[in-house]
Amino acid sequence: KTLLIYDHYDVQPPEPLELWTTPPWEPTIREGKFFARGVADNKGDLLLRIQAVESWLATEGALPLKIKWVIEGEEEIGSPNLGKFVRAQRALFKDADGCLWEFGAKDSHENPMLICGLKGILFIELHARGAKRDLHSGAAPIIENPAWRLVWALSTLKNERDEIIIDGYAQTVRPPTALELEAAAHIPFDTALELEKYGLSQFINGVRDFEAVKKLYFTPTVTICGLQSGYTGPGGKTVLPNHAFVKLDFRLVPDQTPELILDLLRRHLDAHGFADIEIQVTEAGEHVARSPLNSAIVRAAQAAARATYRRDAIVYPSAAGSGPMYELCQQLNIPAVSAGCGYPDSRGHAPDENIRVDDYFESITFIRELIRHFARA
Amino acid sequence: KTLLIYDHYDVQPPEPLELWTTPPWEPTIREGKFFARGVADNKGDLLLRIQAVESWLATEGALPLKIKWVIEGEEEIGSPNLGKFVRAQRALFKDADGCLWEFGAKDSHENPMLICGLKGILFIELHARGAKRDLHSGAAPIIENPAWRLVWALSTLKNERDEIIIDGYAQTVRPPTALELEAAAHIPFDTALELEKYGLSQFINGVRDFEAVKKLYFTPTVTICGLQSGYTGPGGKTVLPNHAFVKLDFRLVPDQTPELILDLLRRHLDAHGFADIEIQVTEAGEHVARSPLNSAIVRAAQAAARATYRRDAIVYPSAAGSGPMYELCQQLNIPAVSAGCGYPDSRGHAPDENIRVDDYFESITFIRELIRHFARA
Repeated sequence: KTLLIYDHYDVQPPEPLELWTTPPWEPTIREGKFFARGVADNKGDLLLRIQAVESWLATEGALPLKIKWVIEGEEEIGSPNLGKFVRAQRALFKDADGCLWEFGAKDSHENPMLICGLKGILFIELHARGAKRDLHSGAAPIIENPAWRLVWALSTLKNERDEIIIDGYAQTVRPPTALELEAAAHIPFDTALELEKYGLSQFINGVRDFEAVKKLYFTPTVTICGLQSGYTGPGGKTVLPNHAFVKLDFRLVPDQTPELILDLLRRHLDAHGFADIEIQVTEAGEHVARSPLNSAIVRAAQAAARATYRRDAIVYPSAAGSGPMYELCQQLNIPAVSAGCGYPDSRGHAPDENIRVDDYFESITFIRELIRHFARA
Repeated sequence: KTLLIYDHYDVQPPEPLELWTTPPWEPTIREGKFFARGVADNKGDLLLRIQAVESWLATEGALPLKIKWVIEGEEEIGSPNLGKFVRAQRALFKDADGCLWEFGAKDSHENPMLICGLKGILFIELHARGAKRDLHSGAAPIIENPAWRLVWALSTLKNERDEIIIDGYAQTVRPPTALELEAAAHIPFDTALELEKYGLSQFINGVRDFEAVKKLYFTPTVTICGLQSGYTGPGGKTVLPNHAFVKLDFRLVPDQTPELILDLLRRHLDAHGFADIEIQVTEAGEHVARSPLNSAIVRAAQAAARATYRRDAIVYPSAAGSGPMYELCQQLNIPAVSAGCGYPDSRGHAPDENIRVDDYFESITFIRELIRHFARA
């Protein structure tokens, strides 16, 4: 039997440095937590998995299965070379029976989470351009403003009911399976607590509880991540800008692909009179990944969680986020599950990234149990 | 007879300094032009008007009329105190028969321009706010994005046909008078040349020639001067921003006032489901000013232009820009006209601001002729 493991050693930039209690590159333990950039995403899991294997070898001798480990240093920039590597080395992976993915956490009720999929992503910029330089806004009656054009173009992509209204888009969305919906029904979601965490009075369209869970994990999105035009400093400046741009991420669900959505978007903009708006693809896209919830690797992880934590794991058909799980696993039909040493306040990508020391050592036990159960499956 | 004159000595910041050929605070003459920050707007006209009066006194003795001169240092920040000053000192101005306004230029055919009005202006910011901090965009299915809310709110203000569709707005616009339209018919506008100047293939809605002139001087606008949300640096960042804002200027025509438009905008946003979008008024607004085109001061300026330049001046019912002409003149029913020493490449507010030396001395003659003709009127 062969277990594939995926981890990465690259990390996000540590900025803003002033928000770190102790410096990001000086690992520090305090209050039972281990603080450093990358400790949660993904160096903690990477190291504890190595130590789990070492401890198995030290205490039980030979491993009961073969392990193939892919460790990369480009995950945080969208793994631009992983797919090419996997396709070139396909023979290396053809005996893999399941994959343990990089990250994971306990939820706010201390339930271990098992994540069986990731959303895909398409990250682009739209650029609108006007006159050859910024102008005095007195010229606005006759000179087109690219900021207005961008606003109008954007307003044709998504409406106020949070429906993505790109031509042909709705047909690209495959609804969750009965098994996925059943799993989602077990995902705990305390609406009042979550709202308080974000300082909000309601979620989009007022969704709560199971409706919120379904929306979070099963619906695609288009998000304005950045928007810029003209003068944005203090006070007034009556300028007619000559450039406006937006950074958009599309989170994808089955059967969407980055290529398909990019093509629909271009056709949509052209058809709605926005042929002049330029699309720039600034990051490698990522495909959707979904593993069967009843695959051997997921069942082994459930058994390992019960053995380690004395409680049932919560099975997530998908994360809300994205990653290259498709490139390593789904394109080769290798079922994958993600489980790791984080907790709700781990602050991956943010200042004071941390893991709890106890979780680290418990996770070593979890990995040993996973090896044991998966070898038997 | 009493002539009122308005000038200002404050100037715009000189930045970006690297685009100046010679330093902005070291006045320099080269190629027959005088370069310095403020030389066109408004120190050139201020000084030449003083020298015109001095030259009159030196060559002809006593002035044939009384001159009252208002010179302020707050014009470039919207003259926040001028209106209060004028209302408090109303008695000072009650004998003024006409006003010579601060600025002016020859057009690209060397025709002197006489500007008889200014658009009003309302400058505001709209702010949309979301969760209490920026979030990972994986949360986008359930957490409202203020950038999207701002886009949707803006798209209810103006449509792609360049029509301002704020509720009740259309009724606030008084069309130009027959006399104003007749004057506008004499305003030269070379569509091909203007398009080339801006690097554009067409103006908004394809307007050309007289249609462009009418739109430029007689229609109100709402301009996105600045737009900001989220991450706008290089590359990708999948962030769900918690704040988005836009800087908008509304250029106003009769019978609009800043107060009226602000009130309509608030009601409109509330009625369209955007009660959460906050309006901040960041600059003092300015009222519309229009002087009768057949007033004595305009006729005197026409006669002075003929005497000085041996050609007819072009009479503009309004500029495309704004200023405090209402505060000093229209609220006291003093007709005003603006005429000055600039030319199309004077670059007011921009690097290498300049006037032509010959225009400066010709303008002294023009002011002497204006004094002569207005005294007789």
